[in-house]
Amino acid sequence: MSTVRVELGDRAYDILIAAGALCEPARFAACANPRGNALIVSNTVVAPLYADALEAALRPHFARVLRCVLPDGEAHKDWDTLNQVFDTLLGAHCDRRTTLVALGGGVIGDMTGFAAACYMRGVPFVQVPTTLLAQVDSSVGGKTAINHPLGKNMIGAFYQPRLVVADVDALRTLPAREIAAGLAEVIKHGAIADADFFAWLEQHIDALRALDSGALAEAVRRCCEIKAAVVAQDETESGLRAMLNFGHTFGHAIEAGMGYGAWLHGEAVGAGMVVAADVSVRLGLLDAAQAQRLAELVRRAGLPLRLPELPAARYFELMQVDKKNEAGEIRYVLLDGVGHALLRSAPAEVVGAALRAHGATG
Amino acid sequence: MSTVRVELGDRAYDILIAAGALCEPARFAACANPRGNALIVSNTVVAPLYADALEAALRPHFARVLRCVLPDGEAHKDWDTLNQVFDTLLGAHCDRRTTLVALGGGVIGDMTGFAAACYMRGVPFVQVPTTLLAQVDSSVGGKTAINHPLGKNMIGAFYQPRLVVADVDALRTLPAREIAAGLAEVIKHGAIADADFFAWLEQHIDALRALDSGALAEAVRRCCEIKAAVVAQDETESGLRAMLNFGHTFGHAIEAGMGYGAWLHGEAVGAGMVVAADVSVRLGLLDAAQAQRLAELVRRAGLPLRLPELPAARYFELMQVDKKNEAGEIRYVLLDGVGHALLRSAPAEVVGAALRAHGATG
Repeated sequence: MSTVRVELGDRAYDILIAAGALCEPARFAACANPRGNALIVSNTVVAPLYADALEAALRPHFARVLRCVLPDGEAHKDWDTLNQVFDTLLGAHCDRRTTLVALGGGVIGDMTGFAAACYMRGVPFVQVPTTLLAQVDSSVGGKTAINHPLGKNMIGAFYQPRLVVADVDALRTLPAREIAAGLAEVIKHGAIADADFFAWLEQHIDALRALDSGALAEAVRRCCEIKAAVVAQDETESGLRAMLNFGHTFGHAIEAGMGYGAWLHGEAVGAGMVVAADVSVRLGLLDAAQAQRLAELVRRAGLPLRLPELPAARYFELMQVDKKNEAGEIRYVLLDGVGHALLRSAPAEVVGAALRAHGATG
Repeated sequence: MSTVRVELGDRAYDILIAAGALCEPARFAACANPRGNALIVSNTVVAPLYADALEAALRPHFARVLRCVLPDGEAHKDWDTLNQVFDTLLGAHCDRRTTLVALGGGVIGDMTGFAAACYMRGVPFVQVPTTLLAQVDSSVGGKTAINHPLGKNMIGAFYQPRLVVADVDALRTLPAREIAAGLAEVIKHGAIADADFFAWLEQHIDALRALDSGALAEAVRRCCEIKAAVVAQDETESGLRAMLNFGHTFGHAIEAGMGYGAWLHGEAVGAGMVVAADVSVRLGLLDAAQAQRLAELVRRAGLPLRLPELPAARYFELMQVDKKNEAGEIRYVLLDGVGHALLRSAPAEVVGAALRAHGATG
């Protein structure tokens, strides 16, 4: 087992990475509260696979272990679905000693974390991520949120879990499409922060797609370390942390433009990284050969390279609501080399040309 | 003008208390952000009275000053109404530099603060309380929330304002019933923490009801000082801060039992304090004469002393969801003297007898 410590002062916590971890009571000792309840929040796809095993692992540590099963998918990352968690908690008279345990992917993690941030103004929260994307990304850093019809993740909180237990065995039940989507975030970590890791990925991308346990555990560990280091320096995204949004400005626009759930988040990020690298090349920040390395790795991960055929003007409209923007100006995370990112604005004609070169119309 | 500093480290802020303050641009200098927007959140009763004046006072400090007017009353302290704030913010492409300004009573303050806590995971927030209750209580301490059908203030956040501007002139447009409700919280501060202030209130209760400016400013200042001292020691209500809930365990049950909005919060707290003092007497913690002083002051403030005629069992049921409870046990804030409170459980038969003595049935 490997452990990554996220250093956040009195909100510091551990990420435990191991095959089979979610079935092992000992892994959850750090969040034990024998006088309180635990509520497992999961969805209709993941709960039948893992909720019984997780419940058994949690039972020694809590007075009662309850369960709330939500509908699956980004399309349900909204207030009405979140409210089912509050209905369950209040219906069972759960007090402030209740721990919410997220069992699922990024959507379940984001929603459960936000529910924990808000319930009685804050109760403890544990993440058990079951997708590659959630293991490498959403469970590190305390970003929680739900979507609003006018923008993704617009309503949320920075709220840290007490513990993250990442069981790479849980990835065996993921569809190949979800593995590919998770690899987009894995590639992102190399692209923005670690050229050696990027080169490692070029060597191991096939092993990762084939679900090699050792390769997966190593990729999860390395991504968590990179992200934990960034988050420890910038918990509330005032500067450095924005680099983690590489590919996300375009990616969020894809997701919103196509309707949440049509493209997986990772798929949108994959295509978004390729466009962002192209913008970087057009601005003279990045060699074309380096952008080509990125595009090739995205392709080998099984991800789409082309944007959906929306007008470029629609992309700009959707990017206007990005949280990184300042005073109405769109800001982009760009690369000035594989392994190093920067945040800046860019001329609309340059971005428009890059959008059109990758499939946008108009 | 008097200033009360709420000492909370990097979240410290000032409360400015003065007649006419909400019309004066200089009072808002501390929250200026010329590159960002301000959104005034108010309701249909308060906005026509003060929103134009506040907008003029804010205009020098922000790029744009927007407005969102919600329906009035506790009955609208829910998600659907809160979402109108998000709709306004996203519709106007407001970014993270937006400051939310609450103009109204406790409901507007709680909702606006929660909206600020959640919008893009947190934007700055300023309180301009226009009711006595909000000036003495809700604008100090950073508690924000909305109600859930199964419990009051169950969904919220601890989120501190950057500035509070309390204009005692704004109290002149309040109905007498609202003044009385605010006095309940004023009395509470004396009862739990300051016997001298309690004695001062016994002398000045008539001047306060007559809206004497000097008396009001003094009462607001003293309450803010008391509450600020408590909050500075216990920001997230793990111990001392629970004392501020004196009268609220019973009060919340009254409000929920009668349907939110039927009783004003302060009215429910007034009757709740009388019951809590009676429980204190029955447990041998408090002299009957001291409980009588409290009941007399509550009566002179113009507040009801009798509970609504709900069965005692219904009160217990409603108190089960109180946030102070631990592991299913109801905990009460009681007095062991005028000016000193403590938190403890109490036998159901003692509490039941006190409930029945003050109007509960069954």
